[in-house]
This record gives sequence, structure tokens and C-alpha cells, in this order.
Amino acid sequence: MRIDLFLAPGLADEQLLREKTVVVIDVLRASTTIVTALYNGAREIIPTTTIDSAARIASNLSSEVKLLGGERNGKVIDGFHLGNSPREYTPERVKGKTIVFTTTNGSQAVVKARYATATLICGLVNITAVQEQIQRVGGDLTILCAGREGGFSLEDTVCAGMLIQRVMEGRNEDAELSDGAVAARVIYRALGKVPLKLLRSTEHGKYLQEIGLGEDLPVCAAVDRTPVVPVLEENVLRLPREAAKAASVGG
Amino acid sequence: MRIDLFLAPGLADEQLLREKTVVVIDVLRASTTIVTALYNGAREIIPTTTIDSAARIASNLSSEVKLLGGERNGKVIDGFHLGNSPREYTPERVKGKTIVFTTTNGSQAVVKARYATATLICGLVNITAVQEQIQRVGGDLTILCAGREGGFSLEDTVCAGMLIQRVMEGRNEDAELSDGAVAARVIYRALGKVPLKLLRSTEHGKYLQEIGLGEDLPVCAAVDRTPVVPVLEENVLRLPREAAKAASVGG
Repeated sequence: MRIDLFLAPGLADEQLLREKTVVVIDVLRASTTIVTALYNGAREIIPTTTIDSAARIASNLSSEVKLLGGERNGKVIDGFHLGNSPREYTPERVKGKTIVFTTTNGSQAVVKARYATATLICGLVNITAVQEQIQRVGGDLTILCAGREGGFSLEDTVCAGMLIQRVMEGRNEDAELSDGAVAARVIYRALGKVPLKLLRSTEHGKYLQEIGLGEDLPVCAAVDRTPVVPVLEENVLRLPREAAKAASVGG
Repeated sequence: MRIDLFLAPGLADEQLLREKTVVVIDVLRASTTIVTALYNGAREIIPTTTIDSAARIASNLSSEVKLLGGERNGKVIDGFHLGNSPREYTPERVKGKTIVFTTTNGSQAVVKARYATATLICGLVNITAVQEQIQRVGGDLTILCAGREGGFSLEDTVCAGMLIQRVMEGRNEDAELSDGAVAARVIYRALGKVPLKLLRSTEHGKYLQEIGLGEDLPVCAAVDRTPVVPVLEENVLRLPREAAKAASVGG
């Protein structure tokens, strides 16, 4: 087994992601919000890179079924129903809905992986579920960190390192790691023991606290809080049928 | 003091490097080769991004004073005098020469920093000299890792982490670190104790061994072997006058 890791979308050529199993990580906050929304019963999430394309896609959907969600500079976009806080995506709001979703980092990373064989969304909130799915599927793994504003993000790298550590403990102790994967594992071991403390200390975590969104951090730090795995199929994020059933019983 | 770090040139907007003190790191091998060549008496090094521009610049120089150096895929370029192995840049070959130099990663990173206030070249071979110069100059610091093929490189990050660790021990224990700088320091502490062992284990180090250039690794791993600091001035790399004098006495 080989594990590759791209520390930011700008470092990953989308042709290099073709026919790979790709895990996209954006702990603050798109991964957490996508996982939470689908866990809480949203029908599907359509990720887009621009506000314009989000509006265009939404204009083709009936108003009863659709919600527009996302952020720019961490804040709700004018005219959108929801921002990028997982706390907004409650069962009452999202059940049965199609959510058109555009964020600065996470949506861009998901779209970059559109030619992958399988694209899974991972945050701390569903890391064990993702690990189990990877081990069921087998084969090589490519991790794509969404990062921040095109650059590196410590929290995404720590989450990636935690996933690598767990996959290797699972049954791949001799996995071949790329330089980036080695680095992520080392960083996780040094900084990942208390996720909430980490999130409060990173550049993005500090920024969210400054703009009054510090309450999102405990949600994003809650390991295995919402154990479902969103999968990208034909540019739409959904839960696989089994997970959808379990979640609708649970929700 | 603030320390920023870009893990690859693709993550650094050259406008963000404007008016900064920038340290460019390419341990394997451009930093090491540039430092070695100037330490051994080369007059100056002109970094360029393409083979064509190297040839154009060289065509304006008299053949007695010029050398063409660099690599593609780690190997000597057709028609060039020298590759990118520091072992080739001996005093006999380089003394008094102007070297036009193009490499896959390092030259690109140097050119990216052309609008910086000061651009210093750092490898393991001159890390203490760079640290001392940073502390003399004072102010904030931006580190640009050359990486590999546009992506992340473990050895450059470890070297960056070692530099950060030393600068902070020097007299800046409360320096403010970007996410990337925090990561580099952690990676250095975990993996940087035995530089040669590290270089033999990284993707780029393994590749160099595969193509028969493994003997470059001990040279690139030799901490403080050639204690001079190349500085970029008007797109040309030279040693500051003091260092040039000391080196010519030593060489």
C-alpha cells in the first residue's frame, strides 16, 4: 500500500488524482459541515468553486428542496441561506434538502478530485468511519488537504496524520509513505493529542475565534461525532445507501 | 519577530515575498551547490528558470569567464559544463567564474523571491552562517522551501525547521510562527537529528541514489561545511564582500 499526501490543493495536479482513492480533508470547516449536514439528513450536497456557479445551479432547483450554503472569508455569503458553520446544518433545516455549497478551500479541493475513482470527505468528526472504509476498499490512498487560502493548514495536516497513523495501525504497518505523508504523521504525533487545543492554536482557528465563530471549534474537534462518509458521485456528495439508512434512523 | 514558511514555491505568491527577508532552501541540491561554488571562489551565479534563458544570458558573456550549470531530472543538461552536484564545483573549476545556473526547483524558488528586500541561500552546509546573518539583520523572516517538482520536500522542511529552532534559541524564543513554521520545527525535532540518514530516506534522496548520485548526499548533509551566505542582488547571487574575502583566503 502506498499513501500519498498533498498538503494543499495547489500542489496537486488533478490528473495525478485520476483513478485514485482520494480523501479530502478540510477540518475548519467544510469537511465537518458536509459530514454534519449529510448525517443530519440532507439529501445531497453539490460543491462548486464560485458563488456564480452556485447561484446558477440553484436556479435550476425548486425552492422547496434547495439551500445555498458556504462562506467567503469565513462569513455567510450575501443571499445564501447558510454559512459554513456545522452548527447551522441542523436536522430541522437540512432534512431532505439539496445543498449547493461553495467555500474558499474545501469546495475547491473536492472539485479538484473530480476525476478520482472515489472521493471521500474526512474530518475529525468521521475519521474512524473513513479509516474503516479505506480498509474495506484496500489499494493505495491519496490524501488532499484543503489548506487555507491556497496554502498550508496545520489542522488539516494533523487530521491527515491521524488518518495515516490509524490506517497503518489497522493493518498496513509497512505502507510506503510519500514525504508529505511522513511529515503529516510526525506532526500528528507531536500536536494531535488534544484536537480542540490544536484547533484553537492554528492560524485558521484563531481567525474563526476573532470573527466570533469560536463555538465551531469544539464541533470540528469532536472525533467520531458523526460517523458517516460522504462520497462524491458525478459531482454530488451523498452518503452511500447503507450509511444514509442508518443516519436517517439515528437522526 | 514573525517567521513565515512556504513549503513549496507554488504556495508563495511573489508579491507576498516583496520587501521581506527571504531564505531560500533547496538542500538537494541547488542550495548546497550554490553555497559550495561561491565558497570555492566563483565570482557570481546567475539563476534562471529555463534552459533557453540560461543559454541566452551565457551568450552575452565571454567564454573565459562563464560556466553553464544545472540539471533537469537531476542530470546534467546537454551542452552544459556542469550539473547540479556540489562535488563538481571545485576551486579549480569555478574560481573567478560567472556561473549561469538553472535547476528544476532551487532556481525557480530564487527567482520567485526576486522582489524581496534580501534573499539568502540556505542549506545544511551553511545553516549557522545564515542564522547569524538573520540575527544581525533582525526583523521578520520568510522561508521559502524549493521542494520537489512543485511539491513538498521533507529535507527542505527539516532544514527550515532546524533554522527556525536555532533562530528561536538564539534570542527570539517568543517569535510568532505561521502554521508552516510550526510544522517545520516539529518535523525537524522528530527527523532532523541525523541529517545524512534523513537525506537517504526522502523521495528526492532515494531518487539521487537511484541515478548514481548518492555520493552527493554526505556533502549536502554536512552541517556548516561551507559557512558563507550567498545573497541575491539584482538577480545575481554573490557573497557579501566580507565573506568573499574570508573564503578566498580559506580556498
